[in-house]
Amino acid sequence: MTKMKASSDTADARAVATAEGAREFLSRARSVVDARLDALVPAEGVEPTAVHAAIRWSLFAGGKRLRPALVLAAGETFGARRAELMATACAFELVHTYSLVHDDLPSMDDDDLRRGRPTCHVRFGEATAILAGDALQSLAFQTIAEDEGLDPTLRVRVVAELARAAGTPDGMVAGQSLDLAAESRAGVGADELDRIHERKTGAMIAAAARCGAIIAGAAARELEAVSLYAARLGLLFQITDDLLDVTASAEDLGKTPGKDARALKATYPALHGLEAARGRARAVCREACAALDAVERPTSLLRALALLTLERRA
Amino acid sequence: MTKMKASSDTADARAVATAEGAREFLSRARSVVDARLDALVPAEGVEPTAVHAAIRWSLFAGGKRLRPALVLAAGETFGARRAELMATACAFELVHTYSLVHDDLPSMDDDDLRRGRPTCHVRFGEATAILAGDALQSLAFQTIAEDEGLDPTLRVRVVAELARAAGTPDGMVAGQSLDLAAESRAGVGADELDRIHERKTGAMIAAAARCGAIIAGAAARELEAVSLYAARLGLLFQITDDLLDVTASAEDLGKTPGKDARALKATYPALHGLEAARGRARAVCREACAALDAVERPTSLLRALALLTLERRA
Repeated sequence: MTKMKASSDTADARAVATAEGAREFLSRARSVVDARLDALVPAEGVEPTAVHAAIRWSLFAGGKRLRPALVLAAGETFGARRAELMATACAFELVHTYSLVHDDLPSMDDDDLRRGRPTCHVRFGEATAILAGDALQSLAFQTIAEDEGLDPTLRVRVVAELARAAGTPDGMVAGQSLDLAAESRAGVGADELDRIHERKTGAMIAAAARCGAIIAGAAARELEAVSLYAARLGLLFQITDDLLDVTASAEDLGKTPGKDARALKATYPALHGLEAARGRARAVCREACAALDAVERPTSLLRALALLTLERRA
Repeated sequence: MTKMKASSDTADARAVATAEGAREFLSRARSVVDARLDALVPAEGVEPTAVHAAIRWSLFAGGKRLRPALVLAAGETFGARRAELMATACAFELVHTYSLVHDDLPSMDDDDLRRGRPTCHVRFGEATAILAGDALQSLAFQTIAEDEGLDPTLRVRVVAELARAAGTPDGMVAGQSLDLAAESRAGVGADELDRIHERKTGAMIAAAARCGAIIAGAAARELEAVSLYAARLGLLFQITDDLLDVTASAEDLGKTPGKDARALKATYPALHGLEAARGRARAVCREACAALDAVERPTSLLRALALLTLERRA
């Protein structure tokens, strides 16, 4: 029960001690996820070649694989084997990638550049980009449903979690819609901004961690703790994203920085100022780690991932 | 074993005898599916209101609910209870509706009118139409995954079937991509046209019938027969669609007829001539019914549905 009483400061210190280990974990997770994704997606030469080329262009654009890493980290924290987690980890990346492809479209965020390369619709045309996104979403659910290594009871729970996190009214699509609506008017407040980001980025990040824990058979109390942790991690990711848009170089970011400010977009730095936004990020990171105090298992990896998110440069 | 030896002519005659019953079945299926869909989709007032209004606009536009009806008809033919089939039936309609919303977009088929009303993007804007389609797809898989009345082993099989039929390389998205590619060049042959439509409309129609039979626990041989039946039914649906574009009135169709011809689109009438296309439709209808000869159960409903498709006026 000592872990229950650990202060947030102790938790952070423990995370610092394993930051290098967490970096190594992320790097290895990225490699295995990339290899599995490569095997999941039809080759470029398979008809319809345009759609498959577009899928591969967007899927293998150098993404960090944060969501798959969270599935693995949370799952392994609660005792799942990696083989049980891989299909679900990949499914989260497939859905995340579809959302990037669609969000970049001219009628949405109208982005020409992502991770230093032309976006999918710039390279392949709008129709193919829309279809590539649609096919990525189907493939995500197919991948989980066909994962013979996972009990069907777990597969249906994971499909439901992913679908809820991706859709509406509380998932990613809802967040993107609220975000677009907020862009077209002034006076977006702090609460509204939180509500947008809980859905737009938070829901998928939280579900990734939850699904790892579900596959591991985590107890209800543990599942609740990891959900709270991941919800804070999602918010942290969004705040640092907004901060990087203000402070990072184009080279680090792989896209044009300062875009939010020029679009007069509601962001944490715009609403609260740069220093207050940084303080908010640190507080949210502490809250994420504090949530893990309810878990009676080693959680240093999850804590370290939160700290890496706080300190990320790209 | 007498049914095994029934000639195609006998099969058609049997269908004619129950055409009125099939119409009644379709009408009742539509009512129960509409009611269930209404319960599945968030109300218009729920945030994000634009997405939910767009979803409802497209989902309740007077669709025939052919795919759900096929889930029910095939499922009940093989002995499933309707309660076991409803979630899957609705999921097929959710995916079908998402595909209509996305296919109508300016960068795809650029249609302003569907079923006599402005299309989703004309009414709600492109961004909201894209998001509505994306959310409909997520909701489809969520609906099956959360169907407590269905064994998880069946739920994962149905999710996988639907995902394959919706996606790529052999599903609906692949068909739409091949169709768009074919539009931009001349010389599309009969084999290529078949390959496009097997994916664009055939895959979902075949999967709908297959999923009904899977839920009912149909034997492998029965599943094969119903797959063959439904694949022919899908092709029949496409040929009659092309024929209606040439022969039907705008009022019957709810959209502007003659669009294919003006777009110089490869269609069955354009490739084969009107009379040959009609002959092809009759032959495909006979093949659909003949496939059912391998099923040792009453299949008059499925046969009657094929005949109604052959004779449809809208």
